[in-house]
Amino acid sequence: MTARNVTLVGLGAMGLGMAQSLLRAGHHVTGLDHDPARLAAFAADGGAVAGNAAQAHTALAEAEAVILVVVNAQQTEAVLFGPEGISGQLRKGAVILSCATFAPHYAVDFERRAETCGLLYLDAPISGGAAKAAQGKLSIMASGRAVAFTAARPFLDAMAETVFELGDRAGAGSAMKIVNQLLAGIHVVSTAEALTFGMGQGIDPKLMVDVLSRCAGSSWMFQNRGPFIADGDYRPHSAVEIFVKDLGIVTQAAEDAGLSVPLAKTALNRFLEAREAGFGREGDVAVAKLYAEEGHCAIPGWPRKTGE
Amino acid sequence: MTARNVTLVGLGAMGLGMAQSLLRAGHHVTGLDHDPARLAAFAADGGAVAGNAAQAHTALAEAEAVILVVVNAQQTEAVLFGPEGISGQLRKGAVILSCATFAPHYAVDFERRAETCGLLYLDAPISGGAAKAAQGKLSIMASGRAVAFTAARPFLDAMAETVFELGDRAGAGSAMKIVNQLLAGIHVVSTAEALTFGMGQGIDPKLMVDVLSRCAGSSWMFQNRGPFIADGDYRPHSAVEIFVKDLGIVTQAAEDAGLSVPLAKTALNRFLEAREAGFGREGDVAVAKLYAEEGHCAIPGWPRKTGE
Repeated sequence: MTARNVTLVGLGAMGLGMAQSLLRAGHHVTGLDHDPARLAAFAADGGAVAGNAAQAHTALAEAEAVILVVVNAQQTEAVLFGPEGISGQLRKGAVILSCATFAPHYAVDFERRAETCGLLYLDAPISGGAAKAAQGKLSIMASGRAVAFTAARPFLDAMAETVFELGDRAGAGSAMKIVNQLLAGIHVVSTAEALTFGMGQGIDPKLMVDVLSRCAGSSWMFQNRGPFIADGDYRPHSAVEIFVKDLGIVTQAAEDAGLSVPLAKTALNRFLEAREAGFGREGDVAVAKLYAEEGHCAIPGWPRKTGE
Repeated sequence: MTARNVTLVGLGAMGLGMAQSLLRAGHHVTGLDHDPARLAAFAADGGAVAGNAAQAHTALAEAEAVILVVVNAQQTEAVLFGPEGISGQLRKGAVILSCATFAPHYAVDFERRAETCGLLYLDAPISGGAAKAAQGKLSIMASGRAVAFTAARPFLDAMAETVFELGDRAGAGSAMKIVNQLLAGIHVVSTAEALTFGMGQGIDPKLMVDVLSRCAGSSWMFQNRGPFIADGDYRPHSAVEIFVKDLGIVTQAAEDAGLSVPLAKTALNRFLEAREAGFGREGDVAVAKLYAEEGHCAIPGWPRKTGE
């Protein structure tokens, strides 16, 4: 394998793991982040970090690829095309892998503007969570020109277990990702609704997770999030805020297209209520606490017992 | 294996397959149904049928077990304890396997009344669909006394791939079943909502089924029902009416217990609207037609093209 120069912007829970996977594959990885603590974390892993504009400029000028693991379309646009945007610092033919979740029309626009700058663009939203990111086993829902896929291939291989190739222009990857988020967000809430409904009737939550994981009511989220609720684990493996954002994107895209999404709206309302109740930075399963309070029933870890 | 006498009441889509599985296992099976066509279907399979009250009386008097595969608690009660109820015709120590889906308090009541008659009672709701019923590969969510399990064992083994033993009294099986139906009903609707949302953005439904079945948005129902929507297959593999009934049980049980179930209510409303639109006897995926009409977009098989 050829070691290649790659810059990754956004060393958060997902980005840091992805940067580690790229390092492990032997690439020369420079991390950028506005948070010095995140830079220090990556430096501790043996990664290069750009602590000032000059260092960032050097890294970007040498990069064959830049991977954007930022929060949304606004941040992606600012990083690429803002006043200090990197599109002018990359060499011609470098490929941008854009990993944030946003509506497809942004991806179409970013691809067009990147190409105007002589850059390649891959619409490449990611799925799988922080653990899979660190293992290099993400799923990536990608679309873009064949030349962009070819340029991105070594980096995709380092970060992903599965790369879905969904079309030859940007937009198709983002479209598939938001359909996935519609399902995933509803199913986090259905998991909480089902387990609290069952607990309210006296069924042990661990027994429900065991039995229903093997029945027609099962889902990926039920199997993944169900144990957190059964254990009272409200740590932010993935936070309430993420689905406030992603189901907000879904419901906006539906409104723009004149499509009805009543379940997604109901699920979004639960996440908004959870944030309103102060659980925004807890795990997304904290929606279970709303159900427990409404039903006046105790669930594992909630209400928190005195002394905990 | 010892061949045993068993009577099965309700030769519908599920009951007929279960009766066939019992026959295949070598038991002496008598089928009861008010519909002569269903009796004829089972007779054609080599089953015994009771065409009049005297024949039914003889079969019931000889039965070690009676299996009730009727629609709801009201039918179960009528068959067992109504004016022509069978509880008085069964021999002491015979076991009743009750397979309909209903609220747990009915199961508790039926067990008590069966025991008053010297009968054993197993709360045994079933899951898996008509194909699994015919293969003897159902899942059964069972609870009841140890003696009831022992008496029911040969018949459970003939009908089920998995028997969950959920407690030593009736009620626990029914409670688990309605939690499963809450999830399953929501996930049928989320499948329809996701696929129409994606199609409205131009994504091929077969590609969505393929990709999202392997992503965090997947569910048992997405994998099972998604292909029906992608193929425009609205045959009643399982009808809209079933989830009108089962989510009605769920929302009533939630109301009785003071629990909130906003997703289940939203899903129930979709099934009620589908019935209102004339799709009650079509496959439950017909809720997708509501989404297509609201979004003014065509989906496979709907609107039906001229000449189809």
